[in-house]
Amino acid sequence: MELLNKTLSAIQEPDATSEEKALERLNSLTKPQGSLGVLEDIVVKLAGIYRTPKVVSGPKVVLVMAGDHGVVEEGVSAALQSVTPEMVLNFLAGGAAINVFARHSGAKVVVTDVGIAAPPINDENLKHCRIRSGTGNIAKGPAMTREEAVEALEVGIRLVNEEIENGAQIIATGEMGIGNTTPSSAILAAFSKRPVEEITGRGTGIDDKCLERKKKAIASAIEINKPDASDGLDVLSKVGGLEIGAMAGVMLGAAARKKPVLVDGFICGAAALIASSLSAMSKKYMIASHLSKEPGHKVMLDLLGLKPFLHMDMRLGEGTGAALTFPIIEAAIKMYNEMATFEEAGVVM
Amino acid sequence: MELLNKTLSAIQEPDATSEEKALERLNSLTKPQGSLGVLEDIVVKLAGIYRTPKVVSGPKVVLVMAGDHGVVEEGVSAALQSVTPEMVLNFLAGGAAINVFARHSGAKVVVTDVGIAAPPINDENLKHCRIRSGTGNIAKGPAMTREEAVEALEVGIRLVNEEIENGAQIIATGEMGIGNTTPSSAILAAFSKRPVEEITGRGTGIDDKCLERKKKAIASAIEINKPDASDGLDVLSKVGGLEIGAMAGVMLGAAARKKPVLVDGFICGAAALIASSLSAMSKKYMIASHLSKEPGHKVMLDLLGLKPFLHMDMRLGEGTGAALTFPIIEAAIKMYNEMATFEEAGVVM
Repeated sequence: MELLNKTLSAIQEPDATSEEKALERLNSLTKPQGSLGVLEDIVVKLAGIYRTPKVVSGPKVVLVMAGDHGVVEEGVSAALQSVTPEMVLNFLAGGAAINVFARHSGAKVVVTDVGIAAPPINDENLKHCRIRSGTGNIAKGPAMTREEAVEALEVGIRLVNEEIENGAQIIATGEMGIGNTTPSSAILAAFSKRPVEEITGRGTGIDDKCLERKKKAIASAIEINKPDASDGLDVLSKVGGLEIGAMAGVMLGAAARKKPVLVDGFICGAAALIASSLSAMSKKYMIASHLSKEPGHKVMLDLLGLKPFLHMDMRLGEGTGAALTFPIIEAAIKMYNEMATFEEAGVVM
Repeated sequence: MELLNKTLSAIQEPDATSEEKALERLNSLTKPQGSLGVLEDIVVKLAGIYRTPKVVSGPKVVLVMAGDHGVVEEGVSAALQSVTPEMVLNFLAGGAAINVFARHSGAKVVVTDVGIAAPPINDENLKHCRIRSGTGNIAKGPAMTREEAVEALEVGIRLVNEEIENGAQIIATGEMGIGNTTPSSAILAAFSKRPVEEITGRGTGIDDKCLERKKKAIASAIEINKPDASDGLDVLSKVGGLEIGAMAGVMLGAAARKKPVLVDGFICGAAALIASSLSAMSKKYMIASHLSKEPGHKVMLDLLGLKPFLHMDMRLGEGTGAALTFPIIEAAIKMYNEMATFEEAGVVM
């Protein structure tokens, strides 16, 4: 709890002066003012976060958190729970989508077991931070204790601190956990008060019958656990997930250390809701990436005040949407540093 | 006319067998089927275009066409016409946004004068293909003769052929021409029959008064010239632009040579409408990139049956949105080639 509290109290407002100076430079570049839209917004935001108008590219890390979900016993997922550890091995071998996109953009991938429901995976490249082997079934009771929720957040904080100490300048979150769109919808239901019907989707591709079971499980999770939307720890412990907590911790840790976090899809959005409930200021360190095919994702991003710019109909998770965004962020930074000014180019608008 | 006719008759349907084989491989990779959305669609499309399921990355080229517009005398633009040659010099010096994004993605930029209204620019890196020094004022008469329209198309075809002969595997179109959202809206009005009001925007950022003048000029261009929507050459010659014709030529030439073309924003969309009116099949070789802030852009892409995936609120032109898309296309190709299959990874869904 001490690390969490210390982290929360370290999160400051981004620096407005650096933002203004960045905007000033953007307006001097050979383009109509504001005509690069989101790319310009990104540069201004990075200047505020890094507290300097000298925005440059730096090392990139994707933190992938893996955990399992007791609620899969309700039949809410198309895939077997054993896919979680199998995919973790695939991450470690470099064969998953997240590995490809991370290599493409020169980002490091760090894979962490925060709560897989399987025998420990013996691999030195895996971060072993398992808190428990899967959550409880949220359709019948809480996902975890309040202490475990704090632990999950602190795993994320510790890991992101470690990466930042090793030089990381920009962070992306990703996850693996069969069934984890179910707690994500439950978290969204708790914070948004929107009907379960509206914010529950097909995850990685379930059929109609499975979707009905999923909606029932989410409704039951809310009814039985009564998560308190004014208390992020209560929501996380009652209807959350271990990997969701760890990702929320990454977001808080990054904000405390003044680094931007790229938020991936629906499950990362749920983590962002937890993080922003613990520190509203942390939202200012988040950059949305893609808009997922999950119907609740837009509701989530609206709540967070974030606007996604990749509309790829993706629904894979792992951090794939966030990792795809790295080249766009880099393009924005290069535009800011490499474009000629009106004066340099002799262009008179 | 001979080159144009030869090009049009060479455009074939993409290869369905290669598309099917690509989809087969995509479905064997360690991800839920279809979960990478647009990235998977892109790979399938590329397989059909290249007529092989072996989709690999290759040299990238951005063809930037520059031309001026007589209609600027109606006061439809915020910038001076002299900005067209000034920005062309900026492109040649490597200081514009398109240069930065092209460098970022390893693409070559080829800049062509198809119709600048200024003394010839003396630079060996510029392609000198000027047909006339700016179009006529479309609010008062035709932009150019039918012969000049054919010439503009053939400039594009010749240039893209040259690049493909030099190894280009993927093409992006871009443009520079002060005032060119005005003919683009006129082209869209001609093909869509939608009210001018709905499909006219602020271009690079004009004020209310200027916007009124622009709408009036477009309405007048349609009324006076009566472009025939069933004849792309008629629309291009009456209400088009020289750089728009050249970009349409690039699209047709690329389709004839079985190469994909990334379509940039609103002005490239107008060129795509011309191209698709001359060969409906050419649309199958186009890949949409970003959705521009111009209100008519969505109408245009809907007409073309293309779905943009970068939602960046950009309105700069030059090919910037298309160039930003290169890293996404490359990520899709790498995903296809580098991801492990279920069998290789031992993952059992």
